[in-house]
Amino acid sequence: MRNPLSDKVVQIQPSGIRKFFDVVSEMPDAISLGVGEPDFDTPWYIREEGIYSLEQGRTFYTSNAGLKELKDEIAKYLKRRQGLSYDPDHEIMVTVGGSEGIDVGLRAILNPGDEVILPEPCYVSYLPCITLADGVPVRVPLKEKNQFKLTPEELLGAITDKTKAVILAFPNNPTGAVMTKEELAPLVDIIIEKDLLVITDEIYAELTYDVKHCSIASFPGMKERTIFINGFSKAYAMTGWRLGYACAPALIMEQMIKIHQFAIMCAPTTSQYAAVAALRHCDDEVDKMRESYNQRRRFVMKSFEDMGLKCFEPYGAFYAFPSIEEFGMSSEDFANRFLQEEKVAVVPGTAFGECGEGFLRISYAYSIEELKEALGRLANFVERLRAERK
Amino acid sequence: MRNPLSDKVVQIQPSGIRKFFDVVSEMPDAISLGVGEPDFDTPWYIREEGIYSLEQGRTFYTSNAGLKELKDEIAKYLKRRQGLSYDPDHEIMVTVGGSEGIDVGLRAILNPGDEVILPEPCYVSYLPCITLADGVPVRVPLKEKNQFKLTPEELLGAITDKTKAVILAFPNNPTGAVMTKEELAPLVDIIIEKDLLVITDEIYAELTYDVKHCSIASFPGMKERTIFINGFSKAYAMTGWRLGYACAPALIMEQMIKIHQFAIMCAPTTSQYAAVAALRHCDDEVDKMRESYNQRRRFVMKSFEDMGLKCFEPYGAFYAFPSIEEFGMSSEDFANRFLQEEKVAVVPGTAFGECGEGFLRISYAYSIEELKEALGRLANFVERLRAERK
Repeated sequence: MRNPLSDKVVQIQPSGIRKFFDVVSEMPDAISLGVGEPDFDTPWYIREEGIYSLEQGRTFYTSNAGLKELKDEIAKYLKRRQGLSYDPDHEIMVTVGGSEGIDVGLRAILNPGDEVILPEPCYVSYLPCITLADGVPVRVPLKEKNQFKLTPEELLGAITDKTKAVILAFPNNPTGAVMTKEELAPLVDIIIEKDLLVITDEIYAELTYDVKHCSIASFPGMKERTIFINGFSKAYAMTGWRLGYACAPALIMEQMIKIHQFAIMCAPTTSQYAAVAALRHCDDEVDKMRESYNQRRRFVMKSFEDMGLKCFEPYGAFYAFPSIEEFGMSSEDFANRFLQEEKVAVVPGTAFGECGEGFLRISYAYSIEELKEALGRLANFVERLRAERK
Repeated sequence: MRNPLSDKVVQIQPSGIRKFFDVVSEMPDAISLGVGEPDFDTPWYIREEGIYSLEQGRTFYTSNAGLKELKDEIAKYLKRRQGLSYDPDHEIMVTVGGSEGIDVGLRAILNPGDEVILPEPCYVSYLPCITLADGVPVRVPLKEKNQFKLTPEELLGAITDKTKAVILAFPNNPTGAVMTKEELAPLVDIIIEKDLLVITDEIYAELTYDVKHCSIASFPGMKERTIFINGFSKAYAMTGWRLGYACAPALIMEQMIKIHQFAIMCAPTTSQYAAVAALRHCDDEVDKMRESYNQRRRFVMKSFEDMGLKCFEPYGAFYAFPSIEEFGMSSEDFANRFLQEEKVAVVPGTAFGECGEGFLRISYAYSIEELKEALGRLANFVERLRAERK
């Protein structure tokens, strides 16, 4: 029988997170600091709206780009929280989580051979989605000494005649890095000068601590060259609802809606009605969860300090990215031995790009009790490793 | 500023259905026989399970391929209803409606230049999804004299050295055509002989009238070369839940899950729990809706007969596809004039392929009262057209 498969799909590696969790799933007694989703149930107010919507029999398709009501609320929210002005009728589309927005955005802009600059470590979807859309990923390894921010020099060094777009994802998964307005400004100059597009994944925008989030789309001259991705999964603890949105200039959005319309049809209806309630009434719920993440973040950083584990301070998302360089072993070996010996799952930094070697991603979207237990075991493990090396 | 767009996406035409409904939306007093979705709310039992699931706080991601529980129920259902044997752990993936399954299936198998045979008229997604996946669509115009079934001669005539796959979609949207086991058999021989893959969209499998549905995947030698698409939207009146599934041999499914994992993550969680209940407990609800569609179908066919409108009998889905050849005008002109003069929306056959010229798609997923009113207006309109032509 003939080879039934697409060559480019076959060459894509499965997610490193997934690979690791296949091992974890065979250890039912393991505890995890590995998962990239809020530990909170969706706030009751939002669930109640979903329930009401089901009771009312709102079980039909919405229009392709999403409920008018929801797009209007998204526009208001973006104005209110980030000073962004998007026209809900022509520049906003409701998607199946942030994931779909990234896939559709790349499909809408790339021609075969177009280069896309991808700062790493980063979320596992970007690289395969670039490849699937016939683009050529140009990886830029970010550095701990820069707190995993993208520098103007790094960006300039990656640009060629074939560069079409840059993917930015701050606050960052897995590092927790953020970029301030002042840090973004020199990147903006380069992007405009070189006439590049930007895909900015700001799914963690609501989760910054002690710093204010700034969207790159808010700089003059940037909106017209930016595909802005956001969603409800992280800020509103709505991962399972599969609801996000993309904003882009009408010229690009028109093409994105075409792909979305044929490949997906529309986002889930119940989730869309619930999301209207989330945007209208749940600022305080978001505040509460943010405060809770921040407490955990401080607890994690203090624990690292106590055990002498080097970790730059993460100001966003809900991840810490400590260095394990001192132990002279690979991230994967560290994570595997930690899992076997202490029954705690953390993700090797290499799951997020080769330059993640020497780091671990530790999610702090867990209760303080769970964090205490897991970090206690990490302290034991780290001590044991140090003793071995003496 | 540079051209930001993907060339292949720009060349894709927006959906003809959508174009038509843009006109309809500007006539708020129009009634519609145009929409391709059940008019029933989702059965209460299923909605109740969705509500319970939200109450319980099941608002997290499921595993990429879908809830184990749901995949198990899908496997049982396919065995029970269609005699198909799929391994839930390696051959079934839960998708965002049937739409995502088609997109991901094509992306998993096509290399640039691979030809895909596409019998038309057909659902509007197939053609753009082939193009998006770098395939070359080879359209086969089906004929009313064959009741819009694909004949062995038509299939053979379309095969070249570059043919990789055939898309089959019976029961068919927009024609209502079905293909029986006996009619599929000679196609199966050709497909195996020529070593082709099949993508079979059987989303209307539960909606056949007076004939038994037969899946092409059930023929010996076919499962290993078939991507089978189904879902909950039509049979269970669950369009807004965005839930479908794809089945394929493990070799292909492994690649499909990879794409799904990166581009979508997972299908909506509430919908997945509700779908378990649908498969376990709602056979009788499906039976009731089927009986109701069948009554409407007979009413529509009787009305056509009374007004002397030629229409081959549709044995599946919830569409009739009458011929308007006698009026010597295009489908689009007919639909536009009918909308303007009688305020009823029906979809021109050309929205589903050029060979739909001379036909209309009339959905009978409406109450008998609505059908009566709309078909009364159609009778008036037809009479008026005939008088004009005398």
